[in-house]
Order: sequence, then C-alpha cells, then structure tokens
Amino acid sequence: MKEIIAIIRPKKMGATKAALEELGFPCFTAFAVIGRGKQRGIASEVACELPAEVQGQGRSRGMKYIPKRMLNIVVGDADVEPVVHAIMTVNRTQQIGDGRIFICPIDDAVRVRTRESGEHAIL
Amino acid sequence: MKEIIAIIRPKKMGATKAALEELGFPCFTAFAVIGRGKQRGIASEVACELPAEVQGQGRSRGMKYIPKRMLNIVVGDADVEPVVHAIMTVNRTQQIGDGRIFICPIDDAVRVRTRESGEHAIL
Amino acid sequence: MKEIIAIIRPKKMGATKAALEELGFPCFTAFAVIGRGKQRGIASEVACELPAEVQGQGRSRGMKYIPKRMLNIVVGDADVEPVVHAIMTVNRTQQIGDGRIFICPIDDAVRVRTRESGEHAIL
Repeated sequence: MKEIIAIIRPKKMGATKAALEELGFPCFTAFAVIGRGKQRGIASEVACELPAEVQGQGRSRGMKYIPKRMLNIVVGDADVEPVVHAIMTVNRTQQIGDGRIFICPIDDAVRVRTRESGEHAIL
Repeated sequence: MKEIIAIIRPKKMGATKAALEELGFPCFTAFAVIGRGKQRGIASEVACELPAEVQGQGRSRGMKYIPKRMLNIVVGDADVEPVVHAIMTVNRTQQIGDGRIFICPIDDAVRVRTRESGEHAIL
Repeated sequence: MKEIIAIIRPKKMGATKAALEELGFPCFTAFAVIGRGKQRGIASEVACELPAEVQGQGRSRGMKYIPKRMLNIVVGDADVEPVVHAIMTVNRTQQIGDGRIFICPIDDAVRVRTRESGEHAIL
C-alpha cells in the first residue's frame, strides 16, 4: 500500500478529483497549503486564502509562497502508476508551478466503520 | 516508530483527544481537511469551515466533500495497536463517514528543545 | 529520499524558511496545525487563527492546544542531517513548545512539469 501525496494548483483540484473518480478512486483527503518550488514562487498566482499572518510570513526576503492544494490518496501498490499518471495528465501545463507528487510507504489501513484492514480498507 | 493518521468526524475530535490522553498519549497534531470515501460524501454533514473556494470545488459533478479532521500521532511500535483501538472505539458509529486510520513508518523523531531523538523524542 | 516534517512555532516560520533557503533548500510546503506536546499546551501562546470551532475543541478538559506550523520538505538521504540541524538551530529556544521533527521514508517523487522522478524531482 502506498500514499500518493500530490501538491497541485488550487484551480486543478476539480479536474484532478474528476480524473481520479473516473479511474475508480473516489477516496482521498485534501487541504490548503502554501508551497514553494525552486523557482521560489515567481508565478502569476498571488491570491492566498490562508490567514493573513501566514501570507505575511511568505513574503520574507521578497519571496512569494504560492497557495496549493495537497491531495492525499492511499492505493494498492499496483495502482500507484495509473493514479500518478492520471494526476500528471491533468496537472501538467509545462508552466512553473505544476507541482509535485510523492509516493510514501503505508504499513496498514483500517476502515473505522467496518474494522476492515489492509487493502480491504481502501477499496 | 509509526505515525498513526486518523481521519475522523470533526465532532469526534474532543472525545478522541480525551481517549488518547487517558491512554497516556497527549502529543499530536491536528488539522481540518476535506475528505471523501467511496460513498462519495453522501452524508448528513454539509457545513464546511474551509474557504468557500475549496468548498465550491467539492461540489464538482454533484458530489459533496465532507469536512474532516486529520489527527497525526507518532508512537512506538508497541503502542500502535492500543492507540488504533482507542481511536476506533471512540469513532465507530457504524454510520457512513466513520473515517479511516493509516499506519505509516517513521524513521526517526527529534524533540527540538532537548535534542532527544528516537523513541525518547515521542515519550 | 526522506520527508522531513517539522512542527514549529508560527513565529519561527520566517527564520526557518530563510535558513533552509540559505542551505540550498527552497522547496517545501507548509500549513497551519494545532498541536500539543506532553506539557499539554501549557504555554504563553494563546491566540489561534484556526476556525473557532477547532479552537473550541482544543479547550476540552481544560487543556489548551497550541497553533503550530507544519513544514514538509523532501530531501535526499545525505541531506537529512544538515536540514534537521538547520531547523533545530533556528527553532531551539529551550522553552516548552520548541516543537518536533519527524523523518519519514519516501519511495519516489515526480516533478509534474518535467516528468523527472527520483532525486532529480527534488533538486
């Protein structure tokens, strides 16, 4: 089992969710983050819905931090490649700020309602 | 050492924290996320304290995304089972939306104040 | 490749980012969390920019939960030590609430724009 962590543009969330849904992966969590790649956030996105205090910190030393969405999805090992491919396809504009995807090991999962564990918990 | 990631109902946060505290695990971080299980968020919870723009995205294709809390707690290997059990006991209503728990490997931990590392850093 | 997760004081974010930048690590994501260590949040920090409902939960049983920032950075194995050291140096006041750092395994990373993977995706 793996956790796929995708850091994407806020405006790509809807299309990313739709692509995962179509592929048969309706389960995930998502939240707002701020991020910066090696281009140091030099991008056209400036609005940030995070608290003003967080935004302010992002401007230290003249660098901008870009609002992003982080999407977490846990899949079986065999599903890593198609899920990563789907996220790439939707999010790749070839412009700075397309984001990154990380793949992390997960030891186990439990569905609280049914007490199912392992891959049964994520199907 | 393992990280236990629990995605639970917002209204179960207080009881979950109390249960972890009682078990001797007062240390954790928590934050607001939106989530969706395979039932695609068809549930009675609709209010969402996330930014309107995030909420709006959640309604693409007629599906609802449910506000959840994500709770992260790092414990020694021997404590995974009792902590998971405690979270299950508090959060299991047998209704859709009870949430999930993931167990992930952690290589090391450091307490910044004292420079303690390994399991000493999480006690 | 490892993910370094640092849970730090909000007011230390600017200095932490500057230190990572100086060390050659401009890439990360960050977000607001609430946290509690074994001292149960007995600290001088009380303001919390999280939603009122989350704050309210933090006060169950008379304990306070402290607003923190979580900073995630993915680095090559050889860079774990200098990055952890830099975060420690900036954040260590020796007062309660200095925070913790966790090191987690990462299997792979992909830069969406270029399709680079592995350590190339995080340079």
